[in-house]
Amino acid sequence: MNLSIKLFNSLNLQLKTKRFLNIGISMACSRYEYVKDYERDDSILPNVWIVIRVDGKGFHKFSKVHDFEKPNDEKALNLMNNAAQTVMEEFRDIILSYGQSDEYSFVFRKETNVFNRRSSKLLSYVTSLFTSSYVMNWPNWMGDKKLQYPPCFDGRVVLYPSDQNLRDYLSWRQADVHINNLYNTAFWNLVLKAGLTNQQAEAELRGTFSADKNELLFSRFGINYNDLPAMFRKGTILLRKKVVVNKDNAKRQLIVPIHEDLIREKFWKTHSELLGKYKPGEYDDDERPNGDKLPELISRQIANIKLDDKES
Amino acid sequence: MNLSIKLFNSLNLQLKTKRFLNIGISMACSRYEYVKDYERDDSILPNVWIVIRVDGKGFHKFSKVHDFEKPNDEKALNLMNNAAQTVMEEFRDIILSYGQSDEYSFVFRKETNVFNRRSSKLLSYVTSLFTSSYVMNWPNWMGDKKLQYPPCFDGRVVLYPSDQNLRDYLSWRQADVHINNLYNTAFWNLVLKAGLTNQQAEAELRGTFSADKNELLFSRFGINYNDLPAMFRKGTILLRKKVVVNKDNAKRQLIVPIHEDLIREKFWKTHSELLGKYKPGEYDDDERPNGDKLPELISRQIANIKLDDKES
Amino acid sequence: MNLSIKLFNSLNLQLKTKRFLNIGISMACSRYEYVKDYERDDSILPNVWIVIRVDGKGFHKFSKVHDFEKPNDEKALNLMNNAAQTVMEEFRDIILSYGQSDEYSFVFRKETNVFNRRSSKLLSYVTSLFTSSYVMNWPNWMGDKKLQYPPCFDGRVVLYPSDQNLRDYLSWRQADVHINNLYNTAFWNLVLKAGLTNQQAEAELRGTFSADKNELLFSRFGINYNDLPAMFRKGTILLRKKVVVNKDNAKRQLIVPIHEDLIREKFWKTHSELLGKYKPGEYDDDERPNGDKLPELISRQIANIKLDDKES
Amino acid sequence: MNLSIKLFNSLNLQLKTKRFLNIGISMACSRYEYVKDYERDDSILPNVWIVIRVDGKGFHKFSKVHDFEKPNDEKALNLMNNAAQTVMEEFRDIILSYGQSDEYSFVFRKETNVFNRRSSKLLSYVTSLFTSSYVMNWPNWMGDKKLQYPPCFDGRVVLYPSDQNLRDYLSWRQADVHINNLYNTAFWNLVLKAGLTNQQAEAELRGTFSADKNELLFSRFGINYNDLPAMFRKGTILLRKKVVVNKDNAKRQLIVPIHEDLIREKFWKTHSELLGKYKPGEYDDDERPNGDKLPELISRQIANIKLDDKES
Repeated sequence: MNLSIKLFNSLNLQLKTKRFLNIGISMACSRYEYVKDYERDDSILPNVWIVIRVDGKGFHKFSKVHDFEKPNDEKALNLMNNAAQTVMEEFRDIILSYGQSDEYSFVFRKETNVFNRRSSKLLSYVTSLFTSSYVMNWPNWMGDKKLQYPPCFDGRVVLYPSDQNLRDYLSWRQADVHINNLYNTAFWNLVLKAGLTNQQAEAELRGTFSADKNELLFSRFGINYNDLPAMFRKGTILLRKKVVVNKDNAKRQLIVPIHEDLIREKFWKTHSELLGKYKPGEYDDDERPNGDKLPELISRQIANIKLDDKES
Repeated sequence: MNLSIKLFNSLNLQLKTKRFLNIGISMACSRYEYVKDYERDDSILPNVWIVIRVDGKGFHKFSKVHDFEKPNDEKALNLMNNAAQTVMEEFRDIILSYGQSDEYSFVFRKETNVFNRRSSKLLSYVTSLFTSSYVMNWPNWMGDKKLQYPPCFDGRVVLYPSDQNLRDYLSWRQADVHINNLYNTAFWNLVLKAGLTNQQAEAELRGTFSADKNELLFSRFGINYNDLPAMFRKGTILLRKKVVVNKDNAKRQLIVPIHEDLIREKFWKTHSELLGKYKPGEYDDDERPNGDKLPELISRQIANIKLDDKES
Repeated sequence: MNLSIKLFNSLNLQLKTKRFLNIGISMACSRYEYVKDYERDDSILPNVWIVIRVDGKGFHKFSKVHDFEKPNDEKALNLMNNAAQTVMEEFRDIILSYGQSDEYSFVFRKETNVFNRRSSKLLSYVTSLFTSSYVMNWPNWMGDKKLQYPPCFDGRVVLYPSDQNLRDYLSWRQADVHINNLYNTAFWNLVLKAGLTNQQAEAELRGTFSADKNELLFSRFGINYNDLPAMFRKGTILLRKKVVVNKDNAKRQLIVPIHEDLIREKFWKTHSELLGKYKPGEYDDDERPNGDKLPELISRQIANIKLDDKES
Repeated sequence: MNLSIKLFNSLNLQLKTKRFLNIGISMACSRYEYVKDYERDDSILPNVWIVIRVDGKGFHKFSKVHDFEKPNDEKALNLMNNAAQTVMEEFRDIILSYGQSDEYSFVFRKETNVFNRRSSKLLSYVTSLFTSSYVMNWPNWMGDKKLQYPPCFDGRVVLYPSDQNLRDYLSWRQADVHINNLYNTAFWNLVLKAGLTNQQAEAELRGTFSADKNELLFSRFGINYNDLPAMFRKGTILLRKKVVVNKDNAKRQLIVPIHEDLIREKFWKTHSELLGKYKPGEYDDDERPNGDKLPELISRQIANIKLDDKES
């Protein structure tokens, strides 16, 4: 028996051993599959509003390390908006998103059946995609500022049975941004312009009401709080709207950022598609906060559309 | 009344109006806070193993768009390992992670009380951090290959009451990688080396057993399947181990990747800390898959330690 | 040392041993108390209709063993109504109950906070009290017929977010009784009056529509289905109403059985308190199914009131 | 057209109208069936001990109204045991029940698949059957004492992953009965024999330890606490055991009450079937608390067996 045959036989034996082993592993697989039954069904009750809110984890530190502008970093807020836009583009059943500070809420229409309304699927997918877009788009908004460590968001699912519950939820978040932003604006003006220490600024603001902070801003810094950018004061509402995208008045459905007061009835009347039989509304140019300039979030989408069109 | 006084009075009136408005908003906030009560307590039963598995969403397409090597892209797998390492560094109560293909499982010790065992917190945090690290570390492993769109992972929480359940779960995942990887290795050799179309390769493999694929690989491509890298065949187990990090034999607890057969009893005897009263074991140099070279995942951690030391 | 002292010392020693033992047990109690933490919070989402439905377990056999009249045993149905009344008297937040055959549904108002909306508490309490009243009141309705074995009901909790959902749920149950009762009436007439076997009766009815069964009842048995007692055809709705209880027209809030069509709009208009801001309505004498005679369920309540009044 | 034909036609028309109406109702049924989808899957995680505990609702008042003997009413406790026995006869997967005072715990074996482990089904069924048996068997134990109003039990489901958890749960309940019964025994002796008011008795016992109460019972009332019936001091454990039921030493599996200390290791060694691969053990005559007399709960079962045998 020559060498190559010996080698062949030896290998053949090994193969046979392996064959046995591998059949064992295949069988093993089905032996272990019972563990799949330990997954629980967590599908959500039908006919309720599903809200998923993501929150920055330790963003106090994160904003310090990355030197965010105080009290508001417009670029960082736009990055949040960008991440939320990615989520809305993926999930067509999100009818409204609302962001402020380091948090974003996503509202799925009551009837959605995406992922069979499985809670964990929705929660993890939304949170992951938001995070992914945030990190990936970081350089697009933050320029040369390098990401020092991976930012992270936690998420939760909350269910609201009635339209009024949903409106109250969103009003709660928008009232929250008002209170926090007014405080922060006063605080950082005291620190950055009046040269107070953090402790002194805190002491000065302790016990003050909203009106006191408004007066302080006006009398000491000449700032009329209501003239500050609406995005800082009201947060950002993302809606689907039909937008004119070229000179022929062709319209495309895009995701548009608006900064209105959603606590008031007027918002829900203007955007009546939200609580009605849902279909995207028209984007009203008057909603543009900067006069004739489209928000960058929109103009970037339009730019991408054109690219798509050329390709198709 | 001169102009400045008129202006002042006018503004003062506005401020008073605003004051009223703003007090209204503050009160509103507390009026809306009831919506917090709609969050449900989802804390997990004590004394069970908590497993969180993240899965790449649409990674078939993702790996195509990003031109991953077939059947295995070592760099992409290392990027997965890197992301999992980030999660383990954050959550000290994860005692073992197991990754293969586009999925990673994280095992929290039974007694963990992190986030009060709240299911949504754990799920969203782990999934988000994994995603964040994946995207942020993309350039560190994938070189010039540009990320084309944000990758996304979904996640699920599964509970296992007994040690045997946990072992069976992990065995199930490892048996799965064996079956899939053997198939993929045969498939891609047929396509890439033998020039078959995808359909032809599929047809050729239909109905074959593991042993058949082993023989096909050996006879047609000279490949002894068991000589392929263990990471491809067995997936990656991440454990906490004490590793010698400098010439003085000083040890530091690091996260080490190993590629053993965890289906067998031997694994659990070797790493007896896992199912015992948990404390990290020693990293045995024999576990190094590449002879004397430390896995890159470890050497990068050591490099970072030294950096930290200089800084402190 | 005399005997009594010896005895005393001996007992004293025993007591000391016991003291030690008992202190041990007391401490033990707190050592074991951790097991309380394994109970999960199962409180129900606010602002949804809570429906609890109890169903007789194996009542096909139960009704046979106890020789219930076919197709409907009026006394047995009244016993069900009696048990439901007991539950409504205990839970003031049940605004409507609906019973048919061997099942009863209880509707808690959306805002109820009874037992902090804990699902298990509500479910087990309602099911237990219903069962208890059923067994205890058996002799009051079933006369000399002896209970052969303990009857048993299972229960479930179902949540309905909107008023329309709730109406559809109740309509579903009432449509169910129509279909079943029409079938059963035809079936039992064929068996009891026409002398068919069960199999023959089944065969005759197979594939027939409602109208066919109506015609069969009329042409063969002279029965106009719609003239049969409303309780058989419509089931029983229990509502809280103010009822005149004596000659001075004094009113008391009682639980009244009505047998209306709740699928139609008219029902919800007539009893507008149900979906409005809930307060019990007036009992309209026209609702009396038997002309001038009050339903026995009501007259028994009135009798009990008078008894109470004398006592106080 | 004579009268009967007119009548027929008129009725026929009515029937046609009804036919239309009834078809409408049948269709309606399917239109409403969507509401079934609002039921949630609540099946229990596999491989955990399922404990269901029922608790008397307001039994302080109930025991007063029904004049229960103080501190323990042997008949009322036997009635509880009887109700628990009914539950165990129905659910073969309950391996142990433990009762004390107005509560009973039922332990389902880990592997049970009864009702597909649906939590609500198990909870409601057990609670209902327990209640039903309690009310139905009332006269068999309580003699002429009439039930004044329907007693009611609430229930809860608690899951225990490990054997130790289960043992600790049962130990917790047994430690509880020790503490309460010792207190109650002292209290009621002070009230009933020493003529103290409830307030005086409470005051006397405030701050005392177990040993103090033991001494008080012995020195003032000549009572050696440990000589009191084991059922009062230890509660009742129901187990399935093979019992000799006739003179030929034929054995039948019955449910036997024992009153042992289950906190100690010995109990679990003696009844090793409980935590092992479950099969019922042998009933050891030494366990009989009253010397040669079988507990009534057993002798009644044997009497029933004989009855069954004659019938078959």
